[in-house]
Amino acid sequence: MRDRKSWNVPASTFAKNTFNPIRNIIENMQIVPHPDKPMIALSIGDPTVFGNLKPAPEIVEAVVEATRRGSCNGYVSSTGTEAARAAVAKYCSVEDKLELQAKDVVLCSGCSCALDMCITALCSPGQNLLVPRPGFPIYTTLAVGLGVQTKDYNLLPERSWEIDLEMLEASIDDQTAAIVVNNPSNPCGSVYTKEHLIAILEVAARNKVPIIADEIYDHFVFEGQEYHPIASLTEEVPVLSCGGLTKRFLVPGWRMGWITICDRGNVLDQEVRNGLQSLSQRIIGSNTLVQGALPTILANTPQSFFTDTLAQIQANAELSYSILREVPGLNPIMPQGAMYMMVGVDMTMFPGLKNDLELVERLISEESVFCLPGKCFDCPNYMRIVLTVPEPQLREACKRIITFCSRHHASAHVNGLAHANGHVNGCEAESLKNVEKAMVVEVKSGSE
Amino acid sequence: MRDRKSWNVPASTFAKNTFNPIRNIIENMQIVPHPDKPMIALSIGDPTVFGNLKPAPEIVEAVVEATRRGSCNGYVSSTGTEAARAAVAKYCSVEDKLELQAKDVVLCSGCSCALDMCITALCSPGQNLLVPRPGFPIYTTLAVGLGVQTKDYNLLPERSWEIDLEMLEASIDDQTAAIVVNNPSNPCGSVYTKEHLIAILEVAARNKVPIIADEIYDHFVFEGQEYHPIASLTEEVPVLSCGGLTKRFLVPGWRMGWITICDRGNVLDQEVRNGLQSLSQRIIGSNTLVQGALPTILANTPQSFFTDTLAQIQANAELSYSILREVPGLNPIMPQGAMYMMVGVDMTMFPGLKNDLELVERLISEESVFCLPGKCFDCPNYMRIVLTVPEPQLREACKRIITFCSRHHASAHVNGLAHANGHVNGCEAESLKNVEKAMVVEVKSGSE
Ligand SMILES: Cc1ncc(COP(=O)(O)O)c(C=O)c1O
Ligand SMILES: Cc1ncc(COP(=O)(O)O)c(C=O)c1O
Repeated sequence: MRDRKSWNVPASTFAKNTFNPIRNIIENMQIVPHPDKPMIALSIGDPTVFGNLKPAPEIVEAVVEATRRGSCNGYVSSTGTEAARAAVAKYCSVEDKLELQAKDVVLCSGCSCALDMCITALCSPGQNLLVPRPGFPIYTTLAVGLGVQTKDYNLLPERSWEIDLEMLEASIDDQTAAIVVNNPSNPCGSVYTKEHLIAILEVAARNKVPIIADEIYDHFVFEGQEYHPIASLTEEVPVLSCGGLTKRFLVPGWRMGWITICDRGNVLDQEVRNGLQSLSQRIIGSNTLVQGALPTILANTPQSFFTDTLAQIQANAELSYSILREVPGLNPIMPQGAMYMMVGVDMTMFPGLKNDLELVERLISEESVFCLPGKCFDCPNYMRIVLTVPEPQLREACKRIITFCSRHHASAHVNGLAHANGHVNGCEAESLKNVEKAMVVEVKSGSE
Repeated sequence: MRDRKSWNVPASTFAKNTFNPIRNIIENMQIVPHPDKPMIALSIGDPTVFGNLKPAPEIVEAVVEATRRGSCNGYVSSTGTEAARAAVAKYCSVEDKLELQAKDVVLCSGCSCALDMCITALCSPGQNLLVPRPGFPIYTTLAVGLGVQTKDYNLLPERSWEIDLEMLEASIDDQTAAIVVNNPSNPCGSVYTKEHLIAILEVAARNKVPIIADEIYDHFVFEGQEYHPIASLTEEVPVLSCGGLTKRFLVPGWRMGWITICDRGNVLDQEVRNGLQSLSQRIIGSNTLVQGALPTILANTPQSFFTDTLAQIQANAELSYSILREVPGLNPIMPQGAMYMMVGVDMTMFPGLKNDLELVERLISEESVFCLPGKCFDCPNYMRIVLTVPEPQLREACKRIITFCSRHHASAHVNGLAHANGHVNGCEAESLKNVEKAMVVEVKSGSE
């Protein structure tokens, strides 16, 4: 028996290692928006916050019905009800190419939880996980907490953010447990061709490394683009695909995600299937009301809802691309899907600004426009803008970005015109609160 | 670069170490219910499965309202909305004794997730966690997956399952990260007095070990008993209390649980609070529709709903206690709350049966009554029955238990009368399916 003199309760190594890089970067930012300009947050990866994009009534009423049904309140299997899993299996199957059954589906509390379970099931401490750069930082947050290292492979902006396949293959070593492939991509908005996906699969097959596919933006592609679930293109490579209602159905708060186990070679039958099953028992699945509604939601949401959403986002992409490409020093990369656009920044053109982080900070303090710095995605000299804001706001934001850039451009006579001191006044505290609110949503929700 | 010849994708050590002891025990059970007797499952810790206990209409309509409100679809802070957390803080506060604020609350996907986060935040690999025996097996499932050892302390049946405090204190060593206290208790149905809770806190204070309180059965106590949140009785010991809507509000499937950080000495401010915050970002909280309804649910659920539920359970406890105490060889321990009763079995009185596991198996095959063996709770020579079944079923189950016990009692002339061979017929497959269904609910849902 010990006799401690004073309280000393440290957090576990797991908790200490679990940290969100975005949060870290943003918390250290010096941000006070301009007091005279209302804040426009092009930073928040939540399509619902602006009020222009809403789930279809069919989606909402399916949950109301399930709630009133009275039979969706009890415990169900920790991987989800048979009916809900069968509905997801059908939704994710591709005729003749990917035939999934209920047993291949694990419902999770959001796609984050799906990714958590896949990474936890596949990777042991000391192993590594290959992740895209620029990429969604949750992969690293999840892996590092577990004692699993991440190794970045590059995406190539000049090739619409395709994977640098040589680098990918060179990164694989004996400790590589899996490759994360995110398509369509956050933050890039890229959508891979069938050919590119096959080339990725060839790397995986040659090296016998399974794939974790983050396909939360499934079908979220602009006109003329085609979405292919990566698992539909291989007979050999085992793929754990992570998806959910979050983005396409515009309900991120509902926390309905899933894993589909795509494994035509039965490689994962030995251990991983059971591993996922065991892990699902830690927190016992996702909300049963949404599960009860899932078959209806997946079957009955009208096609027009999806087309309308995408039309708005694509129009925003085209609008902001066409404006920003004309701005000296900026180099937007036109997305093909998802809801983001990366904008390259030639920092040599802005000699008064140290890096993308300072640029983004000053854009807030001078123009009250909030973009995420590329640094959040491990990709300096870029900023990411969100394309789900209402068109007038986006237009106004672009206008302010133009003003900002011309003020700071090397060719401008006065550099650092609006240095962050002019506006320290009574409004500051309030404005700060607003930014913080925006940041809190962004940061705490992890909805990057 | 490596060149592997064949696919070999093992599960991680974490996944392999995460296993549910109940599942393991039950999967190895030889169970074929009696084909002529309808199955009565006294095994399922889900109050909703029998149809007699239902959430109050106020609870259900609060979710319908939140769903239609249209503002509960987006991402929120990963620890929950301010409004929902404030509502939980109010609900869990005790006047003058425990004053909680929104910042002290972390909403989770069910109480299992709350326990997972607390254990993960406090315990590092190589440390140990003290857990009750008999006890809910999820503590071990969660801890062992993380590489954290559990050490059992005994509960004393002869003292209404109070904790063996000497053993508890002797179990504490330098690697003890926390003590789990489950009150009211699953599987015991015990409700601790204020004095006993204070005595537990004294052990924790003397040794400076924080407490994880599993209080998912809060307020779930029979007439004449009083429920005290353990944190309301200490100024010193830091307590992470885990609760939720699951049991008291009869909605286990909704996965709404919470942690309240009760820490008047500010011991957890150094690291653990942040640790919980970081961990909450892994899966980004619980369903926002239920969060939107939470303030209404906690404020407006009528008292009569709680009293009615408890009245049914208490009546069932008294009924089965009074019947089973008369059965030679059985020794039920009258519960004071929750929804379970432990029944001691004097195995020497049943010489034809090896142990509680065989007794429970034979009770299924001969009488189609399914109780969980004490072994599931690390407590041999007991079986646990669930008190939420409708009264007629419970009465019938008790009758069958009497028949079974008298048939197998040492004093009976014919031992092993109905040896599990007489009923292998066409019904078997179907009956087996039913048991499996029951088991699947029990096992997969982890609702033990
Ligand atoms: C690429 C990517 N994966 C996963 C997620 C997480 O999705 P969910 O909210 O369902 O957990 C996001 C959310 O922004 C994302 O952008
Ligand atoms: C003692 C105890 N703690 C926690 C839980 C888990 O509760 P939840 O379903 O909210 O995860 C249970 C469920 O049976 C329980 O009995």
